[in-house]
Amino acid sequence: MKNILLTIAYDGSRFHGWQRQPGERTVQGELEQVLSHTFKKDIKIDGTSRTDTGVHAYGQRASFKSDLGVPVEKLAMILNNSLSQGRIFNERIPGDIQIKKAEEVPEKFHARFDALSKTYIYKIRYGGEQDLFKRNYYYQLQSSLNLKLMEEAAKSIIGTHDFKSFEASGSNPRETTVRTVHDLKVIPIGPLDDSEAKEIHLHVTGDGFLYNMVRIIAGTLIEVGLEKRSPQDVARGIAACSRDQVGHTAPPTGLYLNEIFYDEDEMKRVVEK
Amino acid sequence: MKNILLTIAYDGSRFHGWQRQPGERTVQGELEQVLSHTFKKDIKIDGTSRTDTGVHAYGQRASFKSDLGVPVEKLAMILNNSLSQGRIFNERIPGDIQIKKAEEVPEKFHARFDALSKTYIYKIRYGGEQDLFKRNYYYQLQSSLNLKLMEEAAKSIIGTHDFKSFEASGSNPRETTVRTVHDLKVIPIGPLDDSEAKEIHLHVTGDGFLYNMVRIIAGTLIEVGLEKRSPQDVARGIAACSRDQVGHTAPPTGLYLNEIFYDEDEMKRVVEK
Repeated sequence: MKNILLTIAYDGSRFHGWQRQPGERTVQGELEQVLSHTFKKDIKIDGTSRTDTGVHAYGQRASFKSDLGVPVEKLAMILNNSLSQGRIFNERIPGDIQIKKAEEVPEKFHARFDALSKTYIYKIRYGGEQDLFKRNYYYQLQSSLNLKLMEEAAKSIIGTHDFKSFEASGSNPRETTVRTVHDLKVIPIGPLDDSEAKEIHLHVTGDGFLYNMVRIIAGTLIEVGLEKRSPQDVARGIAACSRDQVGHTAPPTGLYLNEIFYDEDEMKRVVEK
Repeated sequence: MKNILLTIAYDGSRFHGWQRQPGERTVQGELEQVLSHTFKKDIKIDGTSRTDTGVHAYGQRASFKSDLGVPVEKLAMILNNSLSQGRIFNERIPGDIQIKKAEEVPEKFHARFDALSKTYIYKIRYGGEQDLFKRNYYYQLQSSLNLKLMEEAAKSIIGTHDFKSFEASGSNPRETTVRTVHDLKVIPIGPLDDSEAKEIHLHVTGDGFLYNMVRIIAGTLIEVGLEKRSPQDVARGIAACSRDQVGHTAPPTGLYLNEIFYDEDEMKRVVEK
């Protein structure tokens, strides 16, 4: 019995999120189906983050225990063949899920419980006409944004705080709403096409995120960029511990689960059987 | 009764092409439904190009005659409201069809019959790992392409030729398969992200195109870029007037109907009533 960890990219546009749900197309559901069908046995996987409908991933992780009867090194290729849309002129056309890596991990390793921190990227396109080809991949705003103010506000979010203001109202009560945001950067991206529009990516790393937290951070920073809210308002908004004291929830389309971090030493302790 | 010309952009990923078909989601079908529903009368439109499933447009055109009871200047906004996916924070989220322009044209003007020429763009991404977020918008090739050879081959395609070799086999017989390609450019696009992959756009302008002609031109130029076919082979392939003497049909995902050209003087002859 091997414990296997998958690194997974997906385009969330056509999924009802990560989590398996009867009657809905979800990433977990699709992967379990492909794994079970390929290896002729019932396989369930545990993902690290339950991303919502429309949210994307460059580096979701999921683990499962099974004896597949194939070398782990070949697993990504085998699954990508099943997940692809076919071929043209000898090249495989990717589907909307791609296995970036499959590796063996120690028996006690768990993709979700052992995650130390995560990075999300939130992509914003602003100051130009909306581009319909980008509707599923960005938050598009026609107005201009003041990046200096956004950077200033970002600094007040970094650190260990009670982030209750940044949790979707009506969320299930949790033991604690204290979280640590290790880093939050506003990164301008060079001109990507011949349009007027500009692009920024928010990179946020933390030990864990409350429900909708990254999207509320993005919505709040955008309102600062639009000068509808000051950086000082954001610091006050955190202290208020009340959802209505910070900005709106930015749409899921701009959100990408980028990377999950584990204790590298722990992961290397695979017993060589 | 006004004759109205629409300029339309769409993301073809989730359409069964342009042309109305019972039981399938098509761009023409969707637009006719929105127009008819908005103005409470049956409205049929004539498009310039019957783009296939998966093919995109920046500048499709379609005309129709009707009395809508609203100023033509407001028509694009009205239709875009109906076509959008809703709003977030005061900004409209585009759907997969966008009306770029609505204008009044002379009574006898017809979007298809009066078109003098068209430009298509074919987008290719090559020399790097496939990006699943680009699967619906590019032809992605992991191999490298020799652009010099492609440019050389492109020159032999420009001009007036019998393009029978570049028509999908099994197409309905036509009066003539002679067409004029006014221009065919291979345009390298600067690095767009931090991946290894490079991007080129083929810009092809002509007085008309046979079925699949642009996709077969793209497939043929790609085989030249891969050095599986020489520029001289392409010239010979045109002369052979046989589908099997040129390259494969590139996938629809990379194809964009970019612009339709009309006689500007003719279009201005709108009688000022």
